Amino acid sequence: MGAAIGMEGVYVADTALSLVDGQKGALIYRGHGAKDLALSHSFEEVAHLLLLGQLPEGNKAEIWRSALASKRALTAEEHRLLDALPPNMDMMESLRTGVSALSWDGAMWPPTPEAVATVLARIPTLVAYRWHRLQGTPFIQPRADLSHTANYLYLLTGKEPNPAHVRALDAYLVLTAEHGLNASTFAARVVTSTQSDGLSALTAAIGALKGPLHGGAPAEVEEMLEQIGSSSRAADWLQQRLQNGERLMGFGHRVYRTRDPRAEALREVAQQLASEEPWFELALEVEAEALRLLQQWKPERKLYTNVEFYAAVVLRAVGLPRELYTPTFTVARMAGWCAHILEQAANNRIIRPQSRYVGPLPEKSS
Amino acid sequence: MGAAIGMEGVYVADTALSLVDGQKGALIYRGHGAKDLALSHSFEEVAHLLLLGQLPEGNKAEIWRSALASKRALTAEEHRLLDALPPNMDMMESLRTGVSALSWDGAMWPPTPEAVATVLARIPTLVAYRWHRLQGTPFIQPRADLSHTANYLYLLTGKEPNPAHVRALDAYLVLTAEHGLNASTFAARVVTSTQSDGLSALTAAIGALKGPLHGGAPAEVEEMLEQIGSSSRAADWLQQRLQNGERLMGFGHRVYRTRDPRAEALREVAQQLASEEPWFELALEVEAEALRLLQQWKPERKLYTNVEFYAAVVLRAVGLPRELYTPTFTVARMAGWCAHILEQAANNRIIRPQSRYVGPLPEKSS
Repeated sequence: MGAAIGMEGVYVADTALSLVDGQKGALIYRGHGAKDLALSHSFEEVAHLLLLGQLPEGNKAEIWRSALASKRALTAEEHRLLDALPPNMDMMESLRTGVSALSWDGAMWPPTPEAVATVLARIPTLVAYRWHRLQGTPFIQPRADLSHTANYLYLLTGKEPNPAHVRALDAYLVLTAEHGLNASTFAARVVTSTQSDGLSALTAAIGALKGPLHGGAPAEVEEMLEQIGSSSRAADWLQQRLQNGERLMGFGHRVYRTRDPRAEALREVAQQLASEEPWFELALEVEAEALRLLQQWKPERKLYTNVEFYAAVVLRAVGLPRELYTPTFTVARMAGWCAHILEQAANNRIIRPQSRYVGPLPEKSS
Repeated sequence: MGAAIGMEGVYVADTALSLVDGQKGALIYRGHGAKDLALSHSFEEVAHLLLLGQLPEGNKAEIWRSALASKRALTAEEHRLLDALPPNMDMMESLRTGVSALSWDGAMWPPTPEAVATVLARIPTLVAYRWHRLQGTPFIQPRADLSHTANYLYLLTGKEPNPAHVRALDAYLVLTAEHGLNASTFAARVVTSTQSDGLSALTAAIGALKGPLHGGAPAEVEEMLEQIGSSSRAADWLQQRLQNGERLMGFGHRVYRTRDPRAEALREVAQQLASEEPWFELALEVEAEALRLLQQWKPERKLYTNVEFYAAVVLRAVGLPRELYTPTFTVARMAGWCAHILEQAANNRIIRPQSRYVGPLPEKSS
């Protein structure tokens, strides 16, 4: 029997967190369609759903938002450690190291929602602190009155964020918060399975998301949109690309064989906000043209817009540079990672799969 | 179909690195019995075997030893970062953070033996630097003239190490260098599978080894040996323990249903050195008495000495405090982790297993 390299189709955990149904194009978080959540709930509310099992009702939403907001600031010790990181250390390396070094009283077993939520609350501050350091711009203290997403944009820009941008970025964070046993989430569960602590699991997850096969896609879509620049050039540019036998970035997905519900939701948000943000308008036109051309050039393949397409659109529209794409994905997926850590711990068994030995045997066994 | 929680018996990778045969009591590293390796080869030679595919021949052994030795010193930047770690951060948290922050030009894909060997060479220095810092004792610079193991003991104690101790610790490091797809090694492979870099993979592995279900056992054996103290008390102490219905630590293993080849090898080393080290003498007598009593009390179970028993004996004999047991396991397993990273990268596919959704469905799907 061959080993299941890549582990496609190998069931390794029960989860109540999400259902990724690639055939039907559905993504469900604990009984709620991710698209519905993105259109009508904040990232904090969805994090509450994932970590605690239900959407917060009534004033619980504001209590939870404000509890998270109160944990945003880094300690002086954390600042000092981040200041000691070498200047050539990139953003994901810095986040991996910074999360590993967080002040943390959450090492007891099993991990609690309160403990892991500390990291969820603090990761935007880590991103922004390091980013300003690398840019040589002054760090901005987090604001507890803003939402998670608004505060993240505020931390990066120092400006009162544009509500359309907050709305779009919040939808992006909700839609990429959780997606089954992807490599980073699975790494977090493997680490948790040894009864190790949340920081160990989250550090592992960040290291996995750093890999270009996992956290690396949207920058290439943005490059495409940058090169196209205006909708009048879209048809020619895309046609040329297909004539050269090249792939169009942002279309097709390993799991989704039909419409990617995350792209659907972000398109809806882009449509709502197109009059306020020219990038959304451009993206909608590029997408329509690309789908038309793909249908014509590759009629045998069913290619649909994937989440990376609209992720790049949103991240570019709100003004994030490419170096912040994977860190921003980290800010989103942190919610899923934290929820998986809690779920793994609640029904734990150490994860130790089997390998098949294909090396030589000794001449005499010992 | 139920999910394979714990993944026992689920084949996920081909490996030429090691065969763990629990039925026959065999542990093979690339065609060589681990026991034979421990009795006749140094840790560096075995690391060469694991990372590069064969034992070094002729003068290649010394070239490799000295290449590793030349990479031992930490940079001023690395010292500064370790100095910035909070004083309450424990050894494994510090190693996780310290490895994440290593100066590293090995982030290109695929990883090379030279790049990962940097971490292999430097991990003893990281352990010792942090240990002295926590103890308030002065750090000692590594010595390039010593073997990996002798230098590790020298870094911790500042003294020319006792050859019997070096011999025993070296055998321990060889025997625990590699052991198939344990949780930490598997975590390293999952992270590598995204094309992430070696530091990300090794940081994940350290975080997994930190968990008490994985890296936590030998301290309990040492406690038992401390409490017994002298061989004359062994029979009474062990008898009492069994009468109370308690387990004897250091006997029985999840995988090995017969003699654990690692324990066999370390017993042989202990026998060779018993006249030079009273702890070895005590351990041999406690083991003999425990096996006699287990045979009498639990004749239906086949309980054999496991590697934790002799690991604790060796680590205690060479003078390591308990807080350094898991870090020393880290120094050993680093060789296996590095080899698995190289092997995963050489035939890579992103690892994304399947979960089974057991949560509710939305009232209307979206």
